[in-house]
Amino acid sequence: MNTISLNAGNGGKEMQEFLATFLPGFKRGKWENGTNDSATLQMPDGQHLCFTTDSFVVSPIEFPGGNIGDLAFAGTVNDLVVMGADPLGLSLSLILEEGFSKDLFERVVQQIQYLSDTYDIPVVTGDTKVMEKGSIDQIIINTSGVGMAKRVKNERLKKGDKVILSGGIGEHGVALLSKRFDFETEILSDTKPLTEEMRGIRDFIKIAKDPTRGGIASVLHEIASQEGVELEILQESIPLQKAVKTAGNLLGIDILSLANEGKILCFASDEQAEKVVQILKKYNPLASIIGTVTDENTKSRVVLKTDIGSRVLSSPSGKIVPRIC
Amino acid sequence: MNTISLNAGNGGKEMQEFLATFLPGFKRGKWENGTNDSATLQMPDGQHLCFTTDSFVVSPIEFPGGNIGDLAFAGTVNDLVVMGADPLGLSLSLILEEGFSKDLFERVVQQIQYLSDTYDIPVVTGDTKVMEKGSIDQIIINTSGVGMAKRVKNERLKKGDKVILSGGIGEHGVALLSKRFDFETEILSDTKPLTEEMRGIRDFIKIAKDPTRGGIASVLHEIASQEGVELEILQESIPLQKAVKTAGNLLGIDILSLANEGKILCFASDEQAEKVVQILKKYNPLASIIGTVTDENTKSRVVLKTDIGSRVLSSPSGKIVPRIC
Repeated sequence: MNTISLNAGNGGKEMQEFLATFLPGFKRGKWENGTNDSATLQMPDGQHLCFTTDSFVVSPIEFPGGNIGDLAFAGTVNDLVVMGADPLGLSLSLILEEGFSKDLFERVVQQIQYLSDTYDIPVVTGDTKVMEKGSIDQIIINTSGVGMAKRVKNERLKKGDKVILSGGIGEHGVALLSKRFDFETEILSDTKPLTEEMRGIRDFIKIAKDPTRGGIASVLHEIASQEGVELEILQESIPLQKAVKTAGNLLGIDILSLANEGKILCFASDEQAEKVVQILKKYNPLASIIGTVTDENTKSRVVLKTDIGSRVLSSPSGKIVPRIC
Repeated sequence: MNTISLNAGNGGKEMQEFLATFLPGFKRGKWENGTNDSATLQMPDGQHLCFTTDSFVVSPIEFPGGNIGDLAFAGTVNDLVVMGADPLGLSLSLILEEGFSKDLFERVVQQIQYLSDTYDIPVVTGDTKVMEKGSIDQIIINTSGVGMAKRVKNERLKKGDKVILSGGIGEHGVALLSKRFDFETEILSDTKPLTEEMRGIRDFIKIAKDPTRGGIASVLHEIASQEGVELEILQESIPLQKAVKTAGNLLGIDILSLANEGKILCFASDEQAEKVVQILKKYNPLASIIGTVTDENTKSRVVLKTDIGSRVLSSPSGKIVPRIC
C-alpha cells in the first residue's frame, strides 16, 4: 500500500529505510552531524552552534517517574549535551486538544518550569495551537534546543575502544508500559537531563549518544554502521534492574530495543574507559563497560556475546512499542 | 469547565489570556524578545542569535498556492527575518498518521526542499514520529529555526511614525477557506519566505512583524500594547485584493483578523516611511502606508478610521478560524 506505516516511526530498520526516501534530498550547507542527535555549525570564533528538535507524542501522558513535560525537556537537553554542548535555551511548542484538562496541563508545564529552573536552561520561545476535539490525542509537545560546544565530540573509533553505558536500560519503557497495561512494578522512568554527567565525561570520550527510541540495540547499530566498526557486547555486563528484566520477560519484549530517557551510551579509548565509568558511577552505580570495538575496518555489525555463544544482533525492526516518547 | 477551549489557540484575546496563565512562570535568562516572533541572545561578538519555533496543523493540507510544507518553511523563516536575522538553518519535525498517503507526503517534502534550495536555507536536523491511525489528523509539522542578526530591530516608537503593510491582507485565509468550503476564487495563499524583502528594509525600520494567526488586527494590538502607543489606521489605505473582499463578505469574516503568511507589517519614522514603501513595492505593488502612531504615552489602543467615522478596533476574540496555519 502506498501509505506510511506505523513501523516508519519505530526508531529501527524500517524508520531508517523511510528516512532514506527523503532525507538525502535536503542539503545541509555548512552544517555537520545532521543525522546525529544535534546538527552543528562552526561559528566564526571556532565554537560550534548545536541545534536539535524532538516531538513528544507519549501515551500515557503521565507515567511512573514523570510526565510528557519531563520527557520533552530532558529529551531535547540530552540531544544537545551528548554532542558536548552546553544548552543555551529551549523552545516549547504545544499542540493541545480542545477539552484537555487544565489540571493536567498545569502539571505538565510545572515539570518543565521545575527542570528549567533546576538545570538553569531557559525556555525562551514558543508556540501554542489548539485543535478541535478528536483531531489529536490530548497533547503533543515539540521542544527544540540550541547549545554551544567548544569541541564537537566525534572522534574515529579504534579497535580496543570500550563501549560504556551510564546505568540500567529499559526503565523508561517499562515504567510507561506498566501504566499502559496496568501492571505493578517498582520501576520509574529514568527521564533526566544529563547535563552534569556529560560535563564530567565529555573531555574523555570519543562519541556519546542517548539511547531513546529503539533502545541500545538501535544506537549500537547506528554507530557500528556510521563508523564502519564491529562491536562486541557482553550480554552479562549490560546493566539492568531486576524488575526491568522481570517485566521484559512478562511482556515478551526485547529490553535492548526499549527506550531509555536518561542514559548515555558512549565510547572511550581503553586507557580512558575506567575513568569515564568512575565519573558516571557518581550519578548511577550501575554504570559499566559493556563491550569493545573488535574491528575498525570492514565489518559494520554488532555481536552479542552470551553464556551460550555469540550472535549477531539484528537492528530492531517491526512494531517495537509505539508512542513511547 | 476546567478544560482548554478552542479559543485558547485563536491568536487573539483568549489566547493572550491563556498564555498569561503559564508563560510568566518561565525564566528567560539572558534571552530577550521571548514574546516576539523570535527570542534573541547576544553572542560574545555582539551579534544576536535568533531562535523560533512553530507547529503547523493546517487543514486542508494542500490549498491554492501551496501546502503545509510551504507554510512550515516560510512561517519559521519569516519569524527569524522580521527580527532582522539571516536564517542559518531550520529543523523539521514530522508527526505522521499511520496510513498517510506517500504521494501527498512526497509533495509536502518536495516543497520544503524546493524552498530550502531556492532561499539557500538548509534544513539541518529533524525528528519523525508515526502515530496510530485516528490519533492525529494526517500530518503535523514543527519547524524551528536559528538565525543571526547584526542588530535586533526593536526601536521605541514615536508619535508620527508610520505603519506600513507590504501587500494585500487575508490572502492565505481566503485561499484556505475556499478549499475548506469549496467555493471558487482566484486568490492564492501568499505563503512566502520574506528574506529578500526584510534584507531590503531592515536598516530603515523600527519594528517588523508578520501578521499570521489573528491577522493584522492581532499584530496591531500586540504592538500597541507592548509599546504603549496609540495607532490610527486608515481603513481605506489597507491594501486588499478585490476577490479577498468579496470572499470576506460572502463568508461574513473579518479580514483584518484573517491569517497572512507572506506579509510584513512594519513601523518606520516619517522620514524613512516612503523609502521603505518603495523598496517593498518591488516585491508587491500593493505595499502601502496604512496608518500613524498618534500617541506615544499612555493610550495602548488601535483606532480604525473609516468613511463613516472612527472606532476603536477590538482585539480579535472568539472562534476566528481554527487550523488555518
